[in-house]
Amino acid sequence: MDMGSNVCVIVGFGPGLGAAYAEVFQNDGYDLALLSRSGAEFEGNKDNNTSMKAYACDAGNPESLRNALMSAQSDLGKIEVVIYNADLAQFGTLDDVSEVEFEQSWRVGALGLFTSAKLLGPQMAERGSGAIIVSGATASLRGNVWTTAFAPSKSAQRVLANALAKQLGPKGVHVAYLVIDGVIDTADTRTNFAPNEPDEFFINPTRIAETALMLAKQDKSAWTFELDIRPFGEKW
Amino acid sequence: MDMGSNVCVIVGFGPGLGAAYAEVFQNDGYDLALLSRSGAEFEGNKDNNTSMKAYACDAGNPESLRNALMSAQSDLGKIEVVIYNADLAQFGTLDDVSEVEFEQSWRVGALGLFTSAKLLGPQMAERGSGAIIVSGATASLRGNVWTTAFAPSKSAQRVLANALAKQLGPKGVHVAYLVIDGVIDTADTRTNFAPNEPDEFFINPTRIAETALMLAKQDKSAWTFELDIRPFGEKW
Amino acid sequence: MDMGSNVCVIVGFGPGLGAAYAEVFQNDGYDLALLSRSGAEFEGNKDNNTSMKAYACDAGNPESLRNALMSAQSDLGKIEVVIYNADLAQFGTLDDVSEVEFEQSWRVGALGLFTSAKLLGPQMAERGSGAIIVSGATASLRGNVWTTAFAPSKSAQRVLANALAKQLGPKGVHVAYLVIDGVIDTADTRTNFAPNEPDEFFINPTRIAETALMLAKQDKSAWTFELDIRPFGEKW
Amino acid sequence: MDMGSNVCVIVGFGPGLGAAYAEVFQNDGYDLALLSRSGAEFEGNKDNNTSMKAYACDAGNPESLRNALMSAQSDLGKIEVVIYNADLAQFGTLDDVSEVEFEQSWRVGALGLFTSAKLLGPQMAERGSGAIIVSGATASLRGNVWTTAFAPSKSAQRVLANALAKQLGPKGVHVAYLVIDGVIDTADTRTNFAPNEPDEFFINPTRIAETALMLAKQDKSAWTFELDIRPFGEKW
Repeated sequence: MDMGSNVCVIVGFGPGLGAAYAEVFQNDGYDLALLSRSGAEFEGNKDNNTSMKAYACDAGNPESLRNALMSAQSDLGKIEVVIYNADLAQFGTLDDVSEVEFEQSWRVGALGLFTSAKLLGPQMAERGSGAIIVSGATASLRGNVWTTAFAPSKSAQRVLANALAKQLGPKGVHVAYLVIDGVIDTADTRTNFAPNEPDEFFINPTRIAETALMLAKQDKSAWTFELDIRPFGEKW
Repeated sequence: MDMGSNVCVIVGFGPGLGAAYAEVFQNDGYDLALLSRSGAEFEGNKDNNTSMKAYACDAGNPESLRNALMSAQSDLGKIEVVIYNADLAQFGTLDDVSEVEFEQSWRVGALGLFTSAKLLGPQMAERGSGAIIVSGATASLRGNVWTTAFAPSKSAQRVLANALAKQLGPKGVHVAYLVIDGVIDTADTRTNFAPNEPDEFFINPTRIAETALMLAKQDKSAWTFELDIRPFGEKW
Repeated sequence: MDMGSNVCVIVGFGPGLGAAYAEVFQNDGYDLALLSRSGAEFEGNKDNNTSMKAYACDAGNPESLRNALMSAQSDLGKIEVVIYNADLAQFGTLDDVSEVEFEQSWRVGALGLFTSAKLLGPQMAERGSGAIIVSGATASLRGNVWTTAFAPSKSAQRVLANALAKQLGPKGVHVAYLVIDGVIDTADTRTNFAPNEPDEFFINPTRIAETALMLAKQDKSAWTFELDIRPFGEKW
Repeated sequence: MDMGSNVCVIVGFGPGLGAAYAEVFQNDGYDLALLSRSGAEFEGNKDNNTSMKAYACDAGNPESLRNALMSAQSDLGKIEVVIYNADLAQFGTLDDVSEVEFEQSWRVGALGLFTSAKLLGPQMAERGSGAIIVSGATASLRGNVWTTAFAPSKSAQRVLANALAKQLGPKGVHVAYLVIDGVIDTADTRTNFAPNEPDEFFINPTRIAETALMLAKQDKSAWTFELDIRPFGEKW
């Protein structure tokens, strides 16, 4: 088998959802390229003969992100799946958010997806296969008091994904957007964001990653562009 | 094992998508109750020891539909999954559509879902499990020149499903809506609706049913209410 | 001037928003046909030489509504503007709402609009002018725990209006939908629904009616189909 | 009367819609600050004793835009209405659009609105009055093949406006978004974009500006955040 024929890059690897994507895609046999600010590595499951490499980059800096993606392809082979999970998750009102923060939020949320698609979309289209799956949020659909920077960033990201889906879909490349509505269960959210909430308040990140894997494998005669994900106990 | 613990009712069984739901859920081990106007039976796969029964009813007539659902429960056991697939798919402009047709479209599309949920929702909520999955359409989101009757019916159906999801979700019952965007591959659509289109024009109904099965089995910490489905070659 | 050339019918006249529509359109010079269950009359402003007649009918009963609309045309002349304001505003969960109530909510909210458009749309299209303006609600966009009947009714109404707009617009008939988001200031809501809320909690119905009048007079080179209306203090 | 109590700034003045805003707001008695790349002046109507000044700036450059807005306030008085009309209207596929263009489109469409709101929103909120009205587009709602840069920019702009509306509304500042759906009638679109289309194909920019003026004067008990505008002959 062609080494590197099954490479998944996770842009925005880290504890929580990033790690869940890594675990689920690795268990399914994907080689992993893990991109993060720090270049963090993943413990993972070493038993299934997949390859894995970590790269440090800034998703909001096109040159930095391009270099990491090209290194990953050079090391592991053609990228088949992009999980775009980079996000500053910066919250604040008009008073709180500076112009620099407003820009940085957009750079990591939207520009980095553009950079990834600009580099990898054409080669996926040429092969007639591939998937670009984006971790989105309800903020992509509407603004709110605390999402002065976050909502415009996610909204640009979602509509870019929509434009990409319409361009790349007919060429066999599946672009999909997850509207994640709720608080993901991580060490950080359990401790800091919602210390007193019951289990059912949280979304299990592994379950999100399983839905992303389903999308990556969905037959092209019946593709999903967008789906929402929330815990059953969520008020919405 | 408790007989009837795994019963799936398909409201609106028939060739095409109805048969695909039957095939996919039966292959996964569900007993089937098939409701249709004619009481049509399903050839199916007899090898996996599932039960199957067909019932004639009018989904737009509450008494008729209730009777069929109660017969199914009496014959097969508690219903665990409802696939709501009934639909008149009536197209026409304001000039074409009569008041009777406008009403009938709503009765089969929206009232029948209400009847089903009114009967089965509370018992699912009491058990803390179950799924109600609805075959929807893009017309649920907007009206158009030819959808004077169809769009209002699908829109009422979608928003009812949304109300049900918010009421029954916290009790462990998963309500989900499929926005099917495109022409399903059936003998009828191939012959009459789109005789000259290539394969990639059509949605494979089995793939839709597989996505519905995924929803029926989705973990409740990360439920999807709504997703779209379209063939990769679709313009949208 | 041709008598009856400026007739506005208000389907669903009553205290609150219905009366505000009557006041604002009468002050602008429209003759008024006021349709309500009880046939209630309107005090109004008698100084501007407009005509006004009240008719009792059930907007959810096609024959009753058609008869009232035809009587109004016979008495006052061709109807130029339809304000569709009929609504049962029935709230309740799946447990609370009966099939009869679910149907009745749809009949008054959606079927009555269809009946009105079926009768008056073609003659407006033939003249190349006219407006159909619908009092909608946020419930037209999503369901909720308490809107099991109301949301599907408003959603069908909105999408029907959308279909009508696309059919009748190119023929010079303006169809528009008001997404009213908030509690309208009436004797009833002040006393029963929200007795302790400050003024800024409520929407002034006269201001809604003024926006409807603006829509009725909007130039056809730049028509609005949909707009939302809410008080500045509303959380949304 | 306090000089400058009625100042309207148009960010993105130019022929077509910018000039229509200038004409309509000046005729209503507003003093005008016209911001554009070139610092173009406006002929206008000199008879109603309004003031008018033009400023050259780059709406995508926060410092440049801030300087122009502060000069306008220093020259004319406190800004009461912001018409945000800046837009690169850059169209192209993923292959056509460069990272620089993708960024520039966002800077002018979304960052410039943030800069304007960051500078002027707090002072409007302190006074308890003011309006920020944004020239939007259907591309704010969805991406398409040709809108790889344009749609994400407009989408970020719309959702930012939505966040601003929720923050500034309760303080008496009206934020509104116009979803302009169609081709505006200008010398340029008539000649280059759609030379063979009939009059009814185009939106009259003066009619858009009149709707914007209506929004600027709408009573705060019944504010509109969003409305669509399209010519009656438009297919949608």
